[in-house]
Formats: sequence, structure tokens, C-alpha cells
Amino acid sequence: MQALFDIGMVGLSVMGRSLALNMADHGFRVAGYNRSREVTEQVMREHPHENLTPFYSLQELVAALRRPRRIMLMIQAGSPVDAVIGQLEPLLEEGDIILDGGNSFFEDTRRRQAALEKKGIVYFGVGVSGGEEGARHGPSIMPGGDEQAYPLVRPVLEAVAARAAGEPCCAYIGPDGAGHYVKMVHNGIEYADMQLIAESYLLLRHVGGFSNRELADVFARWNEGELRSFLVGITAGVFRERDDLAEGELIDRIVDSAAQKGTGRWASIEALRQGVDLSMITAACNARILSNRLEERAAAAKLLPGPEPARAGDREAFAEQVREGLYAAKIAAYAQGFALLRDASGRYGWDLRLGEIASIFRAGCIIQAAFLDDITAAYRRDPGLENLMLDEFFRARVADNQRSLRAAAGAGIASGLPLPAMTAAVSYLDAFRGAHVGANLIQAQRDWFGAHTFLRTDREGSFHHEWGKGL
Amino acid sequence: MQALFDIGMVGLSVMGRSLALNMADHGFRVAGYNRSREVTEQVMREHPHENLTPFYSLQELVAALRRPRRIMLMIQAGSPVDAVIGQLEPLLEEGDIILDGGNSFFEDTRRRQAALEKKGIVYFGVGVSGGEEGARHGPSIMPGGDEQAYPLVRPVLEAVAARAAGEPCCAYIGPDGAGHYVKMVHNGIEYADMQLIAESYLLLRHVGGFSNRELADVFARWNEGELRSFLVGITAGVFRERDDLAEGELIDRIVDSAAQKGTGRWASIEALRQGVDLSMITAACNARILSNRLEERAAAAKLLPGPEPARAGDREAFAEQVREGLYAAKIAAYAQGFALLRDASGRYGWDLRLGEIASIFRAGCIIQAAFLDDITAAYRRDPGLENLMLDEFFRARVADNQRSLRAAAGAGIASGLPLPAMTAAVSYLDAFRGAHVGANLIQAQRDWFGAHTFLRTDREGSFHHEWGKGL
Repeated sequence: MQALFDIGMVGLSVMGRSLALNMADHGFRVAGYNRSREVTEQVMREHPHENLTPFYSLQELVAALRRPRRIMLMIQAGSPVDAVIGQLEPLLEEGDIILDGGNSFFEDTRRRQAALEKKGIVYFGVGVSGGEEGARHGPSIMPGGDEQAYPLVRPVLEAVAARAAGEPCCAYIGPDGAGHYVKMVHNGIEYADMQLIAESYLLLRHVGGFSNRELADVFARWNEGELRSFLVGITAGVFRERDDLAEGELIDRIVDSAAQKGTGRWASIEALRQGVDLSMITAACNARILSNRLEERAAAAKLLPGPEPARAGDREAFAEQVREGLYAAKIAAYAQGFALLRDASGRYGWDLRLGEIASIFRAGCIIQAAFLDDITAAYRRDPGLENLMLDEFFRARVADNQRSLRAAAGAGIASGLPLPAMTAAVSYLDAFRGAHVGANLIQAQRDWFGAHTFLRTDREGSFHHEWGKGL
Repeated sequence: MQALFDIGMVGLSVMGRSLALNMADHGFRVAGYNRSREVTEQVMREHPHENLTPFYSLQELVAALRRPRRIMLMIQAGSPVDAVIGQLEPLLEEGDIILDGGNSFFEDTRRRQAALEKKGIVYFGVGVSGGEEGARHGPSIMPGGDEQAYPLVRPVLEAVAARAAGEPCCAYIGPDGAGHYVKMVHNGIEYADMQLIAESYLLLRHVGGFSNRELADVFARWNEGELRSFLVGITAGVFRERDDLAEGELIDRIVDSAAQKGTGRWASIEALRQGVDLSMITAACNARILSNRLEERAAAAKLLPGPEPARAGDREAFAEQVREGLYAAKIAAYAQGFALLRDASGRYGWDLRLGEIASIFRAGCIIQAAFLDDITAAYRRDPGLENLMLDEFFRARVADNQRSLRAAAGAGIASGLPLPAMTAAVSYLDAFRGAHVGANLIQAQRDWFGAHTFLRTDREGSFHHEWGKGL
């Protein structure tokens, strides 16, 4: 067979299949392969496409690609990626390109990129966000790897990516693991976004007394303003959804427990390693962790009393307060996520362009939102911006909305509603804006018991004091 | 020279020297060694002791020890430990024992123990807490390693340990890295304890309007009740301390920024890996991280406004509210720490005795407190206790004090005081006690965009819904 194909897709599960069909739609001739013949046959049967051709061995797939070969992996992160790379390596020639489009851990990507580079094979770690719908019709794409080789993959990635204001939501991110790192932080932000929406729901339902129908209307209204986003939009839709199997809305039949796949935790762990405060994303991960302990929570419910929720007097005013609080907390969450990117950029020598990263989140991905236009604008105003909350637009919005955030968080605390992300937002905002954090006392304690020394406000240098001698 | 010595101490900096002198006080003949001859000579000059003899090479030190040889390392954690082990290994014989008393990462300890076991050398990873004072006059000691060999090191460890109610604060913890793991969690709890005290200080000072002198009295009073502890005691002392170099109390001249050495972060990272909510310790780490960003905080202070602190009407009543809130939050912090230990115990097959661990924290270490008698008692009542907050004593105390915790946290939020650990305590308590956490919405969102499926309250199995089709 002649080498006619533009790109190979290895892995034809939901994401791989959708992305392959997306490429095929854009005129690329795609060679598809899946480890299991049945999956490949099913895809061909259910999603036939003139530009998508099945292959049943990697040898044949590689032989059918024009050079330099481009092979995208859409397979489970972890050892399967190493296994497939091991199978492909002997089949490839110098200059051929592997793209890993899964949620690989960025350190794995760094390792793989370095190892393959020595063998003359180009390796891109590519963050792809947007779920099935995004992959099929336009995801947000975050490629990291060798910038010199980027023009060889750019056309296909840009063609299939979502578009925001006419621009493709795909941009070269940086060397080695940069693309997967940014995807990891994207997912962490997604966790925080979802947790903040869930906390707003708790407030509106238990303090505001809103019914599911009313909640749908509230979120639909919010989706027309500054909170306009994919997640707020589907939240409105969720509350409207009837239950197929019972009376009422489906939301009330869903168990109050949510799973997670790991990228949010990775981001939290990286932040702790780097020494960057990512409290809101971590709070979102912990909230899911705790939500899974259903038996313990059920046992504790019988033993530990809590307060009755307060009832909002003016429901509409309360909803507006929650909306403003959610918006302020969202700013804090993104400020933390982008601060982590900024730190990683220096630490790993990636030279990340934060404004460009914000701009490719504007469409295609789960966190797509009007809000990202404002973040893009903030970094265009000042590419070196230290923290999003210091930008003129966002600091004004924080100033306007912080009172509502405090009121919403306070209502939750008084009412027994767990709001870990919103309260973390308040703490972050207050510590960040230079309030007294009490660390002078901690320095004194550490010097007392460990002779760790302390800094003084009025003199240079480190000091040690003989504590407790005058008592 | 005859092999006359009972134990070798490698590393004679503050902790090693203090522990060596402590052993010498108890009649053990200690052979001391430090990489730098000057340090050894200085110790001998400044702290002469008939039972402490200097050695200037590891060969001589090893030759001087009776068999099986016991050599304790009190050196910097990390590669120095591997280096010294590498130097000792060829000098030792089967059955000889190395004890690492530093703050080594438990995974390193597991690795070293396994490697040395193959060579017939016994390895203990030993957590030692108490700072210089503890090491010199009685620390809390957490040895982990081969239980069969424990009788060979037990006499010296128990002799030098602190005593609580007549019992030594030293107990065999479990195999391989268990001792260092428990020390890591101890340090994490110490971070949370210190952060909660710092947050109480913020409330008392800025809302309560207490002067340093008054703060000293408040903490001294607290130290006579259920909050009696080393840390509350020194906190009272800190506020009393005059400044040697300027007018007023020293606390007001100390920079509002505190460093950390890493064990608290390790605990937070491990918790995320294990999937256990350790939000309060993580909040304490993040608070220190943020406290270090002095320049950014100073810049933000000019740009981001905050509310004026509310003023407490009845100051004494407010102080009592803060005290009760601190106590409830402390219960939550220890509940999280011990839940992490419980999870690790099963995960690593350590069979940790949580009551015994609590009992050795009762004296010698930084977190020593009356409170630990109650935790010890709780685990004696029920060694399999799932969560400390479910114990009859603690759940009653949580029930009594949670209102005050909510009021204190609410006052901080309204007043612009960052209380990340106290607010995390409230969220943990509320999520744990079975309140609605909003995870049903998160499940719905995940099923909408990622077909992740969801569980139902009324039926078995996983469900997927075609969301948004009826809109």
C-alpha cells in the first residue's frame, strides 16, 4: 500500500475516535488503529468516514503514513503509553513524530520526550480538553515539545481545534512537558470551578430555598452575564432535567458523592512541591474525597448535630450576593492556577505565555467562559503580571464583590453548609492583600522551640532570642 | 581499643549532641563522631561528659562498639544519610544496627531498610520530636523497623525518652518507614496547631482588641484548662517577652512571615496521594507559603481593599468563643491527622496502634498536650475508631463548641482576617457530619460532559443520562 495517510490515530475509544473523525472532517486522511480489533470494527461500522481507514497492526499503520510520520496516541495515561511507544519505536525513522493526546503526567512526558529525542524521534505531549463533544467538533489543544518541529503538526492541530473570535484554540505551549502541565492546571481549575458552582447551589438551595426549577432559571440568568460559561450553562440544564425513572428532577436522585480521575490532585501535589498556594483546587479535590466516604458520613450524621440553615429574607438579593461571591471566588481560583503556571514557567524554563494560554481556554474546553476573555486581556495588558488579582480589571471586580463573597461564605458557615472552596477564596484574598496573617507568632514559636531564628521589621538579618528566660 | 561502647552517635550538631548527652546521662557509654573534627572538638570542650567519648573516623567508632553494634545517625535527611550508610556498610557485620533519627522521608526509610535487610544489617527509622530541649532531656521517640530486633534498641531509646504518667514516650511503631511516617504526621499536626493558635491571635487582637499583655494572660489562662499544651504555654510566654532592642514587646517587631522545613508539606502530599482529606494541615502549609510572599503582599495591600475588623462587644465573652472555637478546630485537625495514619496503616500493612501513638505524644514533643490524654483514652475505648470525631468524648466536645467555632470563623471572614485552618475545620466538620455537599451536581456535570456516569439514591448500579436533549 502506498503511504497515503496524513496521520495515524492509535486508540479509538471515545476521545481517539472523536478526534480522528474531527481530523477526517477537515480533509486529513486518517489511519486508525486500536489494540482491540473489535473496537476498530465497531468504529468503522458506526462512524464510517471516507477519510478514516482502519488498520489492524501498528506495522501496517506506520507503513501507510507519509513521512515524516505523525502518530497520535489517544490511550490511557501511564504504562500503556510507554508500551505503545516501545512498539512504535523500532518501526519509526528519524524525524517521525509521536503525539500523546492523553492526560499524561507531565514528568512522564518530559522523560519520554528526552528519551525519544536521543533517538531522533520527535515527541509532543498534547493536552486536549473538551470531552467527547470537544474532541469531535473542536477541543482546546495544548501541545508541548520541540518548537522547531511544531510546524509539522500545527496544521492538523489548528484545523481540528475550537475557534474563539476566529482564532484556533491551539497554541504551542513550550518544551517537553509544558503542554501536559498546562492541561493538568486546566483540569485543576475545572475542579475549582465545579466545586464553586456546587457551593453556590448549596447556598441557593438551603439558605435561598430555591427549587430545582428556580435554580435552573437562576443559573440560566447567570449564564447571560459575566459568569457566562460552559459549566454554568450545563448547570442550568442539569436542574431542568426530568428523571426518566421516577418523579421530579433527576438531580435529587443522584448520590451526593463525586469521583475524580487524578489530574486535580496532581496539580495540588505539584503546587505543594513548588510552594505555591493552590488552596481552592486542593479544597475541590478534598471535597470529592470526603464526599466518597458515604458510610462514615451517614454514621456521623446520627452523632454530630449541626445548625439549621438560616433562611434568606430577600431571596433575589441573596441570589445576587451568591452570584457576586461566586464571581469573586472564581477570580481567586484562576489567580491561584495562573500563579502556579507562572512559577512552573520559571522553574522548568518553559517561558509560558499566560495570555496565550488563557486565550486557548476561551472555547472548546470545559472551563470555556466569557471570563477568559478578561484574563486574556489582562495578560495582554501586562504579560509579566504577577497575580491576576493585581490586574486593574480584576482588582476592581474583587473589590466590588468581596463583600458578597464574605456574606455568602458567612451564611454557609452559620448554616452548616460545607463551603471549602469559597472560604479558601476568602482566606487567600485576605492573606494576599497584605492583611496580618499571624506568622510573626509562628516565627516566635519556632525560634522558641527550635532556635530557627526570626526576621525583624526594623533591622536587617536573622535574630535569635532566649525566650522565656525573664519569666 | 576494646569494644567498650554501647552506642555510636554519628552527627553532633544540636540534635545529635543533645541526644548523645541524654544517653550519656543515663549511663550509656556513647562514642561520638562528626564529619567535621571541629564540631566534635567543640562539643567535647563545651559539653564534657564522662560517658561521651570522641572519635575522628567511622572505622575507629565502629571498632569501639560492642556487638551487635548500634549506631544512630542524627544528620541531615536526604543524600547525606545514604552517603553515611554507604561508608558504614563495609565496616559493619551481620546483626549490627543503624538507627536514623533524622526527619527522613518515610519512602527513603522503606528503601534503605529493605536494602540493608538483604545484607543482614538492621535498620530503624526513628522519629524524634522535641527540639533541642526534648533531645537533651527527653524527647518523644517513634522507632520503626524490624520488630524482632527492637529489644536490642529499646533500652536506650526508652531510657532517654520523655515520660508521661510514668510511661516512656517511646513505642515500637511498625515495620520499615512507619516511625518516620508517624513523625511526618506529628509534624503536620504541629503545623495545624500553630496555625490555629496564630488565627486565634488574629481574632483576639484585631476583633477582641487585646494588647500583648492581655494576650499573654488569655493564653496563660487557656493553658490551665483543656487547651493545656506546650504550644499554648509558649504562646503566653511569647506575648510577655520584652524587646531587647526596642520599646515594647518583641512580637510586634517580628516580620509576619514564617518558614517551613518540609515535613508538613510531605504530609499534605501523602494525604492527596492516599485520598485522605488533610485540609487543615495543608492550609497551615499554604498559610506559611503565602506569608513568605512579602513583596507581593505589600503591593497588593495598596491595591486591594478589605473590610475594617469588627469590634467585639463583650471582650471576655469573645475570648471564650475563640477558645471554644480553637478547641473544636483542634479536634478536627487531629481527627484528620489520625485518619491519615489509619489509612496508611492499612495501605502499608503497618498495623499502627493509634492509641499508643497518641500516648507517646503526651510528653517530650512539640504537640504535647492534655488533649492527647483524651485521644489516648478514645483509642483505648475503641482501638478501631474510624474517626476521632465519632468518639463519645470528642463528639460531645464538638457538639458543644461548634457554635463558637462558627462564630469565630464568621467574625474573621467579616473582618478581613485570613483564617484558612479554622474555616477548613468548619468545612470538614460539616462535610463529615453528613451535610449535603453538592457532589450530586458535580456527578451530573461530569456525566454531562464526560459520560462518567452517576449513582442513584434509589437504585443500584451506574447510570448515564442523555443530558440536555429535552431542552
